[in-house]
Amino acid sequence: MPRRPPGEFELIDLVTRLLPVRGEGVAVGPGDDAAVLRPPAGEELVATVDAVVEGVHFDRRFAPEEIGWKALAVNLSDLAAMGARPLWALVALAFPPGTPAARVRGVARGLGACARAHRIAVAGGNVTRAAELSVTVTAVGAVPAGRALLRSGARAGDLVVATGTFGDAALGRRPRAPRALVERQRRPTPRLAAGRALAPFARAAVDVSDGLVQDLDHLCAASGVGARIGAAEVPLSPAYRALAGRARLGLAPALSGGEDYELLLAIAPALLPSARAAARRARTPITVLGRFVRGRGVAVIGEDGAPLAAGPGHDHLRTPGAVAAAGRVLISRGRRLGSRRR
Amino acid sequence: MPRRPPGEFELIDLVTRLLPVRGEGVAVGPGDDAAVLRPPAGEELVATVDAVVEGVHFDRRFAPEEIGWKALAVNLSDLAAMGARPLWALVALAFPPGTPAARVRGVARGLGACARAHRIAVAGGNVTRAAELSVTVTAVGAVPAGRALLRSGARAGDLVVATGTFGDAALGRRPRAPRALVERQRRPTPRLAAGRALAPFARAAVDVSDGLVQDLDHLCAASGVGARIGAAEVPLSPAYRALAGRARLGLAPALSGGEDYELLLAIAPALLPSARAAARRARTPITVLGRFVRGRGVAVIGEDGAPLAAGPGHDHLRTPGAVAAAGRVLISRGRRLGSRRR
Repeated sequence: MPRRPPGEFELIDLVTRLLPVRGEGVAVGPGDDAAVLRPPAGEELVATVDAVVEGVHFDRRFAPEEIGWKALAVNLSDLAAMGARPLWALVALAFPPGTPAARVRGVARGLGACARAHRIAVAGGNVTRAAELSVTVTAVGAVPAGRALLRSGARAGDLVVATGTFGDAALGRRPRAPRALVERQRRPTPRLAAGRALAPFARAAVDVSDGLVQDLDHLCAASGVGARIGAAEVPLSPAYRALAGRARLGLAPALSGGEDYELLLAIAPALLPSARAAARRARTPITVLGRFVRGRGVAVIGEDGAPLAAGPGHDHLRTPGAVAAAGRVLISRGRRLGSRRR
Repeated sequence: MPRRPPGEFELIDLVTRLLPVRGEGVAVGPGDDAAVLRPPAGEELVATVDAVVEGVHFDRRFAPEEIGWKALAVNLSDLAAMGARPLWALVALAFPPGTPAARVRGVARGLGACARAHRIAVAGGNVTRAAELSVTVTAVGAVPAGRALLRSGARAGDLVVATGTFGDAALGRRPRAPRALVERQRRPTPRLAAGRALAPFARAAVDVSDGLVQDLDHLCAASGVGARIGAAEVPLSPAYRALAGRARLGLAPALSGGEDYELLLAIAPALLPSARAAARRARTPITVLGRFVRGRGVAVIGEDGAPLAAGPGHDHLRTPGAVAAAGRVLISRGRRLGSRRR
């Protein structure tokens, strides 16, 4: 436990200077024993924590800016899934000894760019050394009291609605993937505008980090329902279609590749027109994938009407076996505490 | 980025079960995309983040329970320094692949024990793998609006007041240290009761993680004042006196050893009797170390009236050279973002 080299003090100044430390409700930002924050009156807070770790969530191909961006974006995706607007982030950075200042600065720039783009203040933070680079972010947002969008509200009969497209991030991990796909993996866009716009019309939501089928299954388990979605309905980008077609990957990366950071929502059929209008105003494409049903687990129905991954009555589909067998299945995020409790 | 082994899911269940996930204002705890939290009406929040990392903040001599306890306690110490009462913690755990379940369980038990002892709910968390074990905690507390105790309020003429004793944790790191000293390092007690009790009488406070002189200097820098404290006034435990005497360490571990997790406060002389009474009610011993003065930096005055570390007019004492030279100086904590900005 040696005294820190003087250089680390400068790194801290450097990081702090590159972050937006002011924002709504920040009475005292970085520099004291703790930040002082004024919660907005009449609202509830939502709070989440996630870490990105070198060699687990990113590799040497990531630019430092991409590491910083992604660390914050994956947390903002959780706020989006709650229908929240972002307020404050606290950031714990760990760097190996001897990390060049330019790399530290890059991580901070990426964090700062994502924070500015999504109007969240970095109200506090900490820097330590460690064997590998990691960025742990706690993000706090606000929702009107009683209006947080949980995983547990879906009912049989509700539509399974998704934002955006799936599988792009998974393909972006492949060597020589086109830039559009690589960007989806390294600079994910949290669906904050869509989350807030759709919250009034949705009964439940989850963000897709582990994979469409797996996260839909988490929502199903929390709500005590099952889901049937159509393989043909899964929204795919042109870049996905081109690469997945060439490499004969089919739908597997879209169903279970993960890191999509799209939202899955449960919306009553009668509210679909209003939800569509709200999504248009939020400039976010949405697609109906299928329906929530009585029972458990997620069935993906092929164009021949037969289930791809699990048939009716199949016990709680945790790992979409058939889907996994059809392609690489990558799960690259940490796990939320308690995420298997309900 | 391989799929997580199924065993990790069980570890998560295991961690969550050992933590107190309910508490004041926790509408939705672990298990959703984010926790839903109800801030107490009419209060402000204070929030801080700190990490403890294997090989940096703890070593193989720490029991897993001690790692978990310490990770939360160092954050609660920051809340104490703000005069806050604890509300919620979010915990990001990282374990190397193959960590035995018993070790994970031990860390969780330590976190849980500290959380229960200080009545803070673990409202959210995350588990990931990493090269080394680390625990990153974000702690949130509440203070009456406008009453957070900052580092920046000290004025020349205020008394420098300290809780407890100094140097015990530093000596606790030595081989064959008595258990009382080892405990101070591995299971620090955050001064929450004292922080809240003294807040109405104090103009500024800081918690001592890096060392008495260094953290007092941080408070001085934030307040635009200097400080003169008496070497003979620094409160020492009997165990410290015995071991430091035998090993001829003098005052160095007490002045700059760090990890004391005591509070330093600026209190106007007229309020000292009230502060003493409040400290008694909080069952916390306090000691007057000296005074805040015009100027900059911290002077430690020896019994002969001469400064130990830095004389008057000495420029901003960052590293107490004479003190450091007199003994081992250990700084083992991460650095707060922005802690050098003011």
